[in-house]
Amino acid sequence: MRFEPEHFLCRIEEGVATVSLDRPERKNPLTFASYAELRDWFRALQYEDDVRAVIFAPNGGNFSSGGDVHDIIGPLTRMNMKELLAFTRMTGDLVKAMVGCGKPVIAAVDGVCAGAGAIIAMASDLRIATPEAKVAFLFNRVGLAGCDMGACAMLPRIVGQGRAAELLYLGRSLGAEEGLSWGFFNRVVPQAELLAQAGEMAGRIAAGPAFANMMTKTMLAQEWSMSLEQAIEAEAQAQAICMQGQDFHRAYHAFVARETPVFMGD
Amino acid sequence: MRFEPEHFLCRIEEGVATVSLDRPERKNPLTFASYAELRDWFRALQYEDDVRAVIFAPNGGNFSSGGDVHDIIGPLTRMNMKELLAFTRMTGDLVKAMVGCGKPVIAAVDGVCAGAGAIIAMASDLRIATPEAKVAFLFNRVGLAGCDMGACAMLPRIVGQGRAAELLYLGRSLGAEEGLSWGFFNRVVPQAELLAQAGEMAGRIAAGPAFANMMTKTMLAQEWSMSLEQAIEAEAQAQAICMQGQDFHRAYHAFVARETPVFMGD
Amino acid sequence: MRFEPEHFLCRIEEGVATVSLDRPERKNPLTFASYAELRDWFRALQYEDDVRAVIFAPNGGNFSSGGDVHDIIGPLTRMNMKELLAFTRMTGDLVKAMVGCGKPVIAAVDGVCAGAGAIIAMASDLRIATPEAKVAFLFNRVGLAGCDMGACAMLPRIVGQGRAAELLYLGRSLGAEEGLSWGFFNRVVPQAELLAQAGEMAGRIAAGPAFANMMTKTMLAQEWSMSLEQAIEAEAQAQAICMQGQDFHRAYHAFVARETPVFMGD
Repeated sequence: MRFEPEHFLCRIEEGVATVSLDRPERKNPLTFASYAELRDWFRALQYEDDVRAVIFAPNGGNFSSGGDVHDIIGPLTRMNMKELLAFTRMTGDLVKAMVGCGKPVIAAVDGVCAGAGAIIAMASDLRIATPEAKVAFLFNRVGLAGCDMGACAMLPRIVGQGRAAELLYLGRSLGAEEGLSWGFFNRVVPQAELLAQAGEMAGRIAAGPAFANMMTKTMLAQEWSMSLEQAIEAEAQAQAICMQGQDFHRAYHAFVARETPVFMGD
Repeated sequence: MRFEPEHFLCRIEEGVATVSLDRPERKNPLTFASYAELRDWFRALQYEDDVRAVIFAPNGGNFSSGGDVHDIIGPLTRMNMKELLAFTRMTGDLVKAMVGCGKPVIAAVDGVCAGAGAIIAMASDLRIATPEAKVAFLFNRVGLAGCDMGACAMLPRIVGQGRAAELLYLGRSLGAEEGLSWGFFNRVVPQAELLAQAGEMAGRIAAGPAFANMMTKTMLAQEWSMSLEQAIEAEAQAQAICMQGQDFHRAYHAFVARETPVFMGD
Repeated sequence: MRFEPEHFLCRIEEGVATVSLDRPERKNPLTFASYAELRDWFRALQYEDDVRAVIFAPNGGNFSSGGDVHDIIGPLTRMNMKELLAFTRMTGDLVKAMVGCGKPVIAAVDGVCAGAGAIIAMASDLRIATPEAKVAFLFNRVGLAGCDMGACAMLPRIVGQGRAAELLYLGRSLGAEEGLSWGFFNRVVPQAELLAQAGEMAGRIAAGPAFANMMTKTMLAQEWSMSLEQAIEAEAQAQAICMQGQDFHRAYHAFVARETPVFMGD
């Protein structure tokens, strides 16, 4: 992948891209520039075969404190409606780009994970936390609505309608253990093991059938508002496409030969 | 708020309305009159700025036993289809009015919470229970379907499809601890603390940005059947509206001045 | 019910049909023939009043190992797109038939419950497990996508989006206790009690109002992609239909007479 970001960190190794914000002294707030560049990077990712999984990592013990008060909130208070809508669409486009990038994204959440940072964690496919993780949807603390970047659609689907309402109305922190029991987090691991465990999980996914995983990711989002009948027909088509893929044939022949399949992503 | 209900209790203090049914000797069953008046009250609430949160409280140790057998079920058995549909639409309109009222509703559930009472709890945004709370969707016990007042749409979104199916097919009681672990209840507190805790939660919400909270409530319902892409665009518009609100500016200036923001709801 | 299946076992007693696959020595894989016959049987079931609940039972200590590698996966690798789509539509049609059959289905899950077997469990209304149950959505292990027979639509609605993604991307096993805490399983019981407990639950459902239960099942699927307002109107109509049913009248008269109602399903 030739995209070299200026406003966040990015490293690609063995099919796994690890990205993180890079202002650890401020707990990694987002800025106009990092929002836009993340959006563009995830959009570009869609066409990159050399990345098969993504880790969104913390930096300096925190995931992200969300939109920066001085760099973002201040300027927003002076914008007109056209400018405001351009901003909220840009932040929403980051979520769309993450959901549409075709590669499973694992959020590795440590420390502060607030506001837009919590949205990025939520827009990821899987979430691993440390015991120090604190997730908070702070929007109504700053006079805004909980409906930010798709939160009112995504959070109820992850933790249920009642728990989502509580987080959005009260703006209270969700800790690691509670988040695990609610299904917000998939796993809680000690801080020292966070990157290794995220890496292990990403490695397993990257070793899997990349084309089929892209289709799983596509359909998990695509079927959101379909009827069950429509979803079943959509999956019949999607899976038939995958059945003509070489990875399906590789898996079958490996099984017959009692070998472990090596997936190539086509 | 000038609406003075005859068929249920209502008290408004410091922006919090507390309502409850008022037939404690019968465990607070609903009647044709209380259904209709609750519907009208929640509809009127939409235009009232002096109420910023609602508590639906129990009375005499019980929340509600649902539709009264003698006052409602008996007459229903003698109605024609036009009259039956008028009834089921009226009860459904109560849910629509609660969902559309623009103020977060907290159900404070104690004792019996059955049938239409369970629906009212479910149509609330947040639910606090006492250890004595017993929620039961009794419809199939009386020969009816579980699809009453939106139950087959709302319950799966709160507790998941499998648990919703169990409650609706078996009509069994859901207790406080199980309800907490399922995300049906947000909190379980001793009976003696129920109203205080509901009041504290309502007070925090009422002190928040009322216009933004209305928008959160609107979008939590509105995005139900949207695609993820549609939801993100809808939220971009909704949040842009909130960013032109004064509460957003108040929060920013309070932050810069290291003060606590005072929200005014505009 | 006059349908006598050749490719799976079926017994009908007191309104409860118990079906199971019948290749216990291979952990009950599905074949082209058993897929098609199960689809046809569930379609026929829709018109049968003598069956009021279904148990999908294990056989020889296992539920189902899914699509047979030799009988299904091998041939699939040699099919053209028209044939593949015919296959994925047939498997999807089994889910549609189960969802549309009008009778609550209880999956009694023991041992291996993998691939299409896991989908059959998921397409059931209720799930009881033994401690030995192991559910795995193995699709990406064989180079395919997780979107099979409606999995990307159904699994998130049962266990939430984050946990569904984990099961689909990692293909890891879900055990009984974890499945219970996630709401995938409704109950966990010892192996020796599995059929008795499933039978007790099916018996309770079969003794209930069959027409109303059919309506509950219909609406639980039907409202999936409706707006909340549409769902409430749909339920107003569905429940009004049930209120003209005799079972509703029977329940009312039994209540007045302090008797237990005997439901007849009309």
